[in-house]
Amino acid sequence: MRTTTNSMRKLLTSVALRSGLSDEQVHTLYARAAWTTIVEPGDADGGLLRELLGVDESLRLLMKGVSLTEWMRVTDGAVEPQRMQLALGRWRSRLDERVFERALEQASRWNQRLITPEDPEWPEQLNDLGSHAPAALWARGNIETLEGCSLSVALVGARASTAYGEQVAAELAEGLVQRSMTIVSGGAYGIDAVAHRVALATEGHTVAVLAGGLDRWYPVAHSDLFERIERRGLIISEVPSGVTPSRWRFLQRNRIIAALATATVVVEASHRSGAINTAAHAATLGRALGAVPGPVTTGTSAGCHRTIRDHGAEPIESAEDVARLVTGCEGQPTLESAIGPLETRVLDALSRRTGRTIEEIGALAGMGQEDVLAAIGMLELAGTVTGRGNGYVRCA
Amino acid sequence: MRTTTNSMRKLLTSVALRSGLSDEQVHTLYARAAWTTIVEPGDADGGLLRELLGVDESLRLLMKGVSLTEWMRVTDGAVEPQRMQLALGRWRSRLDERVFERALEQASRWNQRLITPEDPEWPEQLNDLGSHAPAALWARGNIETLEGCSLSVALVGARASTAYGEQVAAELAEGLVQRSMTIVSGGAYGIDAVAHRVALATEGHTVAVLAGGLDRWYPVAHSDLFERIERRGLIISEVPSGVTPSRWRFLQRNRIIAALATATVVVEASHRSGAINTAAHAATLGRALGAVPGPVTTGTSAGCHRTIRDHGAEPIESAEDVARLVTGCEGQPTLESAIGPLETRVLDALSRRTGRTIEEIGALAGMGQEDVLAAIGMLELAGTVTGRGNGYVRCA
Repeated sequence: MRTTTNSMRKLLTSVALRSGLSDEQVHTLYARAAWTTIVEPGDADGGLLRELLGVDESLRLLMKGVSLTEWMRVTDGAVEPQRMQLALGRWRSRLDERVFERALEQASRWNQRLITPEDPEWPEQLNDLGSHAPAALWARGNIETLEGCSLSVALVGARASTAYGEQVAAELAEGLVQRSMTIVSGGAYGIDAVAHRVALATEGHTVAVLAGGLDRWYPVAHSDLFERIERRGLIISEVPSGVTPSRWRFLQRNRIIAALATATVVVEASHRSGAINTAAHAATLGRALGAVPGPVTTGTSAGCHRTIRDHGAEPIESAEDVARLVTGCEGQPTLESAIGPLETRVLDALSRRTGRTIEEIGALAGMGQEDVLAAIGMLELAGTVTGRGNGYVRCA
Repeated sequence: MRTTTNSMRKLLTSVALRSGLSDEQVHTLYARAAWTTIVEPGDADGGLLRELLGVDESLRLLMKGVSLTEWMRVTDGAVEPQRMQLALGRWRSRLDERVFERALEQASRWNQRLITPEDPEWPEQLNDLGSHAPAALWARGNIETLEGCSLSVALVGARASTAYGEQVAAELAEGLVQRSMTIVSGGAYGIDAVAHRVALATEGHTVAVLAGGLDRWYPVAHSDLFERIERRGLIISEVPSGVTPSRWRFLQRNRIIAALATATVVVEASHRSGAINTAAHAATLGRALGAVPGPVTTGTSAGCHRTIRDHGAEPIESAEDVARLVTGCEGQPTLESAIGPLETRVLDALSRRTGRTIEEIGALAGMGQEDVLAAIGMLELAGTVTGRGNGYVRCA
């Protein structure tokens, strides 16, 4: 920042998560805000420059307009010349301090905060995106909601959802809230909206990740929903105010959802749904991934089935399944495992009324007495068989 | 067989697949028939004895009632003494020549045939069961149907099927028959019955594998279905006449279905459906395995989802998915064997531009329509031929 004017410091303090900012903190905040206006989401070249040179220095060189040779020198050749030239071409029209300032003014006006990797509130899991990680996040709502994202589930799916998909989304959201998990989604029509709404209705925490700037709500019909999320949860975006959502930004937004959440579950998605893209991001990031199966006759769950097939997503039937996916825990071994081949044959030989002796069971089942005794023991443990007289009967 | 009486030879000839049996063939047939009455399905100890000593000699020693020490000597300690003693305990009550003879009488009376590993018709894929393979199969119907099992799909599922499951079962069966695949199932209510019925209605081949003896139909309400399968397809069981189905025998019957079919698809199954057991057998055998996803709100497809989760079954949405599953089998035996002499002649008779009907191809290739249809099916699978208008063209 060439001119640390008082007004700029005021704007930056207004969007910062804390007060009493040092000069260095002001510079870093400014550089991060600027980077969010310069690059399109997911621009790995920008990320690489920030990694190599730091967020301030990389911005300083950009604004100074140094030569390609100088870039090669300072980055020690880590970025190919041709690639660097293309990146500079992409960013040129946005290297404008007035644009940065306008973004900050809008942010301040709409009560936005700027969350940066320097803040303790920064969701560390976003760093898994490497050079694709956002320079910062713009946010509206309760910043502390981010903390809950360390145990969170992205429920994503079709805008054109069916009653079936909505029912499952609602059941999952409620069950996950009961398990103190935060619900992450994209604020869109259909599955996203149900996930957010049920999270709010059951007094859970929810985060909406949007593809456009937070000065306007998209879709506008969800304005009331976004306002409620702002009051009780959090809305974030990596693009500054004034930026409209585009197809690219939706796709890149999906990578933030996938990276932010502990697990991603595709609730209902046709073959072309954007939720499949979120699932692909989650798979690439090695995040736990689930998908809810649905009817194969309508195509409305084809994207879920494709996610299971192509990305090895877990078939999800309940919030319990999701919880298992998130915690990575295997369920309790059931009593079913007590019923092996011998036990089955003994069960076949037993009556529910007439007690039968070990000898009688052995003859009927074609088994030796030792095997019968062992099987009876297992079945008694499982509660399927009980003694009667000097023999045994089936309970179940 | 101690006494190769004339009547016994007559009985054996009546159930054998061919006439003019040698003394050795008669002995082997008798021993195999006897073994099916002695052991419960899947008894690996019996299978091991047959492997080690041969089917005749193992039976001879059993009937002779030799000592445990003698068993240890002849098996060279391959079977543990304790285990052998338990096995002998299991089999003792069934070592009765009158029982063997009764089984053969019943078989002859009900037009059953005894298919043995010595027959060229024996489905080699059953040998993958190792010592769990059946000693022989009892059969009613058209033995040549077995040949088609080298390209077959087991469609299995719930007895308490829903309209959804039945619709998918019907679509899959029809699509697979169109691809010249044989439909294998268990003759039960629900999904099994739909699979068989649609296979018959679309003039396909179908095999029912039953858990009880073939002197009586189970379930009895499917008598008309079984009679139709007997006329156009095949019904098999590894247990002799007079043996009723039990839970154990159903579970073991499932291993025959899984071993016989190239791929197994669970169409609709709740959490407790026996079809899950068939899927587990298919997975153990390394067979291609699929499951049709369905609604998660009713529990009626929970077994399918569990099969996808626990056994890595492919989610199946269409007959095309199943065809991909079948042809994607390890070693791709089907595609390599797809182009035989008949297929080559059909290819020669086809054009890349002009669609030709089955009749026209038959005339050009000098082949019967059934052969043309079979060859076209194989070539479609291989992706070399596709339908056009009411005829076919070459793709490659």
